[in-house]
Amino acid sequence: MPLLSAFDVEPMIDGRQSPAAMKVRRGVARLLRDLGAAVVPEVTLSSGRRADLVALNGRGEIWIVEIKSSLADFRADTKWPHYRTACDRLFFASLPEVGDIFPVEVGLIMTDGYAAEIVREAPLDRLATAARRALTLRIAQTAARRLHELEDPSPRLSVPL
Amino acid sequence: MPLLSAFDVEPMIDGRQSPAAMKVRRGVARLLRDLGAAVVPEVTLSSGRRADLVALNGRGEIWIVEIKSSLADFRADTKWPHYRTACDRLFFASLPEVGDIFPVEVGLIMTDGYAAEIVREAPLDRLATAARRALTLRIAQTAARRLHELEDPSPRLSVPL
Repeated sequence: MPLLSAFDVEPMIDGRQSPAAMKVRRGVARLLRDLGAAVVPEVTLSSGRRADLVALNGRGEIWIVEIKSSLADFRADTKWPHYRTACDRLFFASLPEVGDIFPVEVGLIMTDGYAAEIVREAPLDRLATAARRALTLRIAQTAARRLHELEDPSPRLSVPL
Repeated sequence: MPLLSAFDVEPMIDGRQSPAAMKVRRGVARLLRDLGAAVVPEVTLSSGRRADLVALNGRGEIWIVEIKSSLADFRADTKWPHYRTACDRLFFASLPEVGDIFPVEVGLIMTDGYAAEIVREAPLDRLATAARRALTLRIAQTAARRLHELEDPSPRLSVPL
């Protein structure tokens, strides 16, 4: 992990994301926006783990999208089963050149950075009410704080939100 | 209401806010941030009315702050009782020079645009569970969509979020 700026006005991009990962993120976020969901990148879950992209649709359903920009990137990830239990639906997202190397029990989105497509639907495994309430609150606070930092940066902020 | 740009990259400022109101908003938002709440300006409620500032604290409590930058501004407002029922606590916020012209059954925050102070606590009148869930979701979606628009503007967006 690279050193993070102590005062980061672009908290959604903090150096952990490769250009390929950012391309995937952009394409997936556009698709989810077109589907009517609101998306927030880099959301820290109650476990302390960070989800690459979280989407919240109009019915309050919460999706996590984990971005894998290469086979090595996927193989290095041993924590994805955790994300399955942390949302209603879990997707991997990748680039067409990576191919479908992903477990069939998780949804899959492919994108070239512009257009994106749901290649495999994710099974619905609904969060319990308390967990959904806590995660929705966390998503709201993460997005609101970043927006506020952009509008009126806090002099005391020492870690990215 | 002024004409709004069809493509507004600064959706939190849309021409309805006077410089005095923006000063109040900034000071109040800083105070609420210091208190650990996340704030979102200009949130459209399920009624279609827009709250000047909405704050969401770590316990999920939702406050609405209505900004009144002058006596005339307050007198012109007949809809504030509506906001009381739309959140857990309602505050007015104003400038010291306006003075305490506000109803005692609502909280009051005074600010010079930099520092701010809660002059009168607002009574707690808790939202019902379904209303809280819906408003928390709305706050999350509003903030997330604005953030996404800033990062990657949507070519199809025709109204400010």
